[in-house]
Order: sequence, then structure tokens, then C-alpha cells
Amino acid sequence: MKARVFVMLKNGVLDPQGAAVQHALGALGFEGVNEVRQGKVIELDLAEGTTEATITEMCEKLLANTVIESYKIELL
Amino acid sequence: MKARVFVMLKNGVLDPQGAAVQHALGALGFEGVNEVRQGKVIELDLAEGTTEATITEMCEKLLANTVIESYKIELL
Repeated sequence: MKARVFVMLKNGVLDPQGAAVQHALGALGFEGVNEVRQGKVIELDLAEGTTEATITEMCEKLLANTVIESYKIELL
Repeated sequence: MKARVFVMLKNGVLDPQGAAVQHALGALGFEGVNEVRQGKVIELDLAEGTTEATITEMCEKLLANTVIESYKIELL
């Protein structure tokens, strides 16, 4: 089975990567870019029968820093 | 309007970040992790009326390195 985990910085946490992308888009002439936030997507190929609870545990222990990041799990 | 761009390394391109995550999950005792690939997700807050063609242009020019990365656009 496959699963996808999205890890984003929480709202209110400064996102310098996103700010850099926003600035670069402006410099390239793209107008109307109000905000950019950049996160990670992690695609997992897991053994059949792995539960969402296990994936949540992976997120809590390794994939996301829950102090500053939020995560979302999507089973494919 | 909001849009989300997913940028992943193309199949066949070595993904050391993904391999590191896979190894770390194994070290933490998670079994059955066959493959991990890590990519980026970029959330854009754009002016109303921005077309998907414009976002494609952003991807081609800045957001993705199309030699080694593929991208997918999702309008929210």
C-alpha cells in the first residue's frame, strides 16, 4: 500500500523558503503572488495492512517536528 | 485563489533524502517500509483569475527543475 504524508510549517511559523520563492516569482515578473508556503511531501510504500495509526506514529516520531510543523496523512 | 504544486524527483533519479528517511524508519523499528520518496509541496496564494497556464510557467521557470523533477498542479 502507498501513503502520502504532507508536512507543512504551522501558521505563524516563519517560512523563509516560501518567502524566497515568493520573492523570486516577483523578480521573474509574476504578479499577484500574495503568499507562498513550502512544505514537504513524503511518499511511503508500505507493507499491506499497515494501519493509519502506524503512519501517525511515524509522523510523530520522525517525519514531522510537531512543535512547528503540522502533518496530514493520505492513504492511496 | 489558492493552488498547490507538488514537485517530486522523477522515477529513476536517486533520492538520498527519501533513502535517509527509509533507513531512519527502519532504525526506529518500523517494519515493511519498502520505499520512501521525498518531494516538495508549494502552496501559492495567488490573485483571483490567475490561470493554470501561468502556474505551469512558474513551475517551468522556477519551482521545478524539469530535468530531474516532475510537478503536478492542484487548484484549490
